[in-house]
Amino acid sequence: MSKGLPKRSEDYSLWYNELVKKAGLAENSAVRGCMVIKPYGYAIWEKMQRVLDDMFKATGHENAYFPLFVPKSLFEAEEQNAEGFAKECAVVTHYRLQTDPDNKGKLRVDPAARLEEELIVRPTSEAIIWSTYKNWIQSYRDLPLLVNQWANVVRWEMRTRLFLRTAEFLWQEGHTAHATAEEAIAETEQMLHVYADFVENYMAVPVVKGIKTPNERFAGALETYCIESLMQDGKALQTGTSHFLGQNFAKAFDVKFATKEGGLDYVWGTSWGVSTRLMGALIMTHSDDEGLVLPPNLAPIQVVIVPIYKGEEQLAQISEKVNQLKKELQAKGISVKFDNRDTERPGFKFAEWELKGVPVRIAIGGRDLENGTAEVARRDTKEKSTQQFDSLTTYIPALLEEMQASIFNKALQHRAEHTTKVDSYEEFKQVLETKGGFVLAHWDGSPETEERIKEETKATIRCIALDAEDEDGVDMLSGKPSKKRVYFAKAY
Amino acid sequence: MSKGLPKRSEDYSLWYNELVKKAGLAENSAVRGCMVIKPYGYAIWEKMQRVLDDMFKATGHENAYFPLFVPKSLFEAEEQNAEGFAKECAVVTHYRLQTDPDNKGKLRVDPAARLEEELIVRPTSEAIIWSTYKNWIQSYRDLPLLVNQWANVVRWEMRTRLFLRTAEFLWQEGHTAHATAEEAIAETEQMLHVYADFVENYMAVPVVKGIKTPNERFAGALETYCIESLMQDGKALQTGTSHFLGQNFAKAFDVKFATKEGGLDYVWGTSWGVSTRLMGALIMTHSDDEGLVLPPNLAPIQVVIVPIYKGEEQLAQISEKVNQLKKELQAKGISVKFDNRDTERPGFKFAEWELKGVPVRIAIGGRDLENGTAEVARRDTKEKSTQQFDSLTTYIPALLEEMQASIFNKALQHRAEHTTKVDSYEEFKQVLETKGGFVLAHWDGSPETEERIKEETKATIRCIALDAEDEDGVDMLSGKPSKKRVYFAKAY
Repeated sequence: MSKGLPKRSEDYSLWYNELVKKAGLAENSAVRGCMVIKPYGYAIWEKMQRVLDDMFKATGHENAYFPLFVPKSLFEAEEQNAEGFAKECAVVTHYRLQTDPDNKGKLRVDPAARLEEELIVRPTSEAIIWSTYKNWIQSYRDLPLLVNQWANVVRWEMRTRLFLRTAEFLWQEGHTAHATAEEAIAETEQMLHVYADFVENYMAVPVVKGIKTPNERFAGALETYCIESLMQDGKALQTGTSHFLGQNFAKAFDVKFATKEGGLDYVWGTSWGVSTRLMGALIMTHSDDEGLVLPPNLAPIQVVIVPIYKGEEQLAQISEKVNQLKKELQAKGISVKFDNRDTERPGFKFAEWELKGVPVRIAIGGRDLENGTAEVARRDTKEKSTQQFDSLTTYIPALLEEMQASIFNKALQHRAEHTTKVDSYEEFKQVLETKGGFVLAHWDGSPETEERIKEETKATIRCIALDAEDEDGVDMLSGKPSKKRVYFAKAY
Repeated sequence: MSKGLPKRSEDYSLWYNELVKKAGLAENSAVRGCMVIKPYGYAIWEKMQRVLDDMFKATGHENAYFPLFVPKSLFEAEEQNAEGFAKECAVVTHYRLQTDPDNKGKLRVDPAARLEEELIVRPTSEAIIWSTYKNWIQSYRDLPLLVNQWANVVRWEMRTRLFLRTAEFLWQEGHTAHATAEEAIAETEQMLHVYADFVENYMAVPVVKGIKTPNERFAGALETYCIESLMQDGKALQTGTSHFLGQNFAKAFDVKFATKEGGLDYVWGTSWGVSTRLMGALIMTHSDDEGLVLPPNLAPIQVVIVPIYKGEEQLAQISEKVNQLKKELQAKGISVKFDNRDTERPGFKFAEWELKGVPVRIAIGGRDLENGTAEVARRDTKEKSTQQFDSLTTYIPALLEEMQASIFNKALQHRAEHTTKVDSYEEFKQVLETKGGFVLAHWDGSPETEERIKEETKATIRCIALDAEDEDGVDMLSGKPSKKRVYFAKAY
């Protein structure tokens, strides 16, 4: 098959879009800004979901489901102090479609079927969930309340890109309530570490754990924790957030509890989420000009086996060996596909599975049959080697493990090469212009400096790293004293 | 705990609503007609999803995700021949919420942010999916296309009931495309059997497999297959449908393929779905005046262990034994909860787990410690027995298996006792009035007779059973000849 992928070095953005489509991950739909997640892309998302869901449950969370719609008045409760609030969101105003009386071939919205109160398609579920928690929480015995939801949400984005920014996307949102600030903060931090664990050990994408500046904080949070990752083009991508909400939502929705001591207090909240945006991070971090590169831990197909044969008899001989191997690898929890299609040639199959990022390809031909061997190709480095067929049941699992580590280390190295300490604004701008990446610089802590840098360079403070070392310095712009460097970058 | 459940015999409908709420399954939300599925209810739904999803994948299907919204024009393509079409559905007309300039404490929909074309929140996804398939299918090599979606859908129902009929509900919808009518029919029938397998062997709810009359068919289908179940109050509930769509959607959305023979033809389609409505069927089929009765195969907690102790020391002794037992049962794939809360008394715990339908309760007290025994109570029959503690690791798995079969058989017997053959309309009406249930009667095949019976008795033809025996008879009303009896019932 002809891949026809643009090169990353020529047009990274076009390369990404074409890769997402050609690898069968997602495509645009008939609805502006909404994507179709295709079976192969959805299979990766399902693997992500399964791992994350197990992690959430292992940390004591339960799933539930809350309504898609939020009555306008609930937003008013949440936003009562917001001046000049405007939210791009999908608004339901009517509830009936009917034949147009003036044009029988057309449908129209029945003007008589107008809702008394408009409904907003959830852009996030704090409002609907906290209005529900009011009834679920009476006493300290009801706490902590540890609930997660897997759902679709809608934000009316004007400029969209597959996975990275779409009007509708899929995500999970955890919403928890606690008796004390300390417990809520511990929960917020715990979930940040869960996300970091997942993103690094399954997606093989390195993260910086940190907190957001007040400017970049989630509205309604006292503290926003985040993990930030670096893509191959030197732009950062936020790969997860976890918010300590203080008592803000409890106060907005009047969620009080009887304390152990006999008092009455507002509960302390958190919320945390990751979305199908992670698919974008996964694709952009590892893939190359030949197509997708998937870390073995999230690949729907980890091993593909392609027979190279002349005639039915040879195919039968190969199939017998392959089916045995497949069974043995599957017994070790490895997903294997035997691509024995007779409609396509081996070269076409090689290119297709390369494009789809299958970590390991095994090819077996007539000579391999004679020699008891097989050709093993790894997708990440494109290295090929000849292996004893009988050794494959131990060789392949070890190879997959090595590849998982190797893919992570490559990304880690890329990040190290694209993380630069700078001490002057000139240097700052030059690094952003030339190599991009994370720029570690001193900042005086003022929103004004942050804002000015953003306006002038489009770089934002991605986070103040949790493990940032104390270092005396001065802000690049204001010259005011600073105690720590922060992470700047242009971001998705 | 005080359950305060109404009796089924006094008010079945109220009993159902109260049970759903008190057992922690679901509740009404701030949005009219939309429910909140609470953690315990959602845990059951997750188990259902997992089993069904495995079955879909075992039969070759892949999951994907399509947009929540359907542009109005796509409905027009689908409904172009429908006269006087009216659909109760949620319509998105605007895309921005903002501070009301006339009342700063309020929000309003920005009148300037009106969509060019209204978007319908999907009531089902045929339109959006078939408009996508047009691009996915070119040749016979692309067929069959076997795709499923797990999603939320919205139908603007006026009278709603938790799980049974809600404006928003969760479901899965399979949408497949095939090269021939035969293959599409085989797929339609296969999925009906998958549903029947699931509903009978996991939900322990007996089904009648059949086809719908043209009146009750899904609009756009050439044939609708269904499974029908009987609730304890004698009303039927449709527990799944599978539609053979012929080439209707392919024609509406112009989905053609190059045949093997070099021609060009429209593809043949199917769609099939089950929803959170199944939760209603599960609850109503088995539960009793004490609360929920769950078949072991779908119970989130299969075994609960309650310690009955005096003092910390005795609790420690019991805990040691219980933790060992728990580990051994879990190793056999059984989910166990050790309810060692010190805030509640055993009697409260017994009542709570009874209400929540946990299949098996084990109680261990001081005398049990001495005797090496435990008290085992099964939820379905309420039988209690004393068992040797050391035998529990074999006794419990066998008991759960027996209970699964027993719960199914009880429902089967109820159905047998509430399935009545009648030959006259007088008898038909009398049976419906007195005992309800399925009524097997002859029908002349005309929509007119069907319609008249529905108007006069509120009973509908649930299905023409696939295994209906040939039997010469005459229609109760028209006296015209009939070859088979069909299933009538009042239905949810």
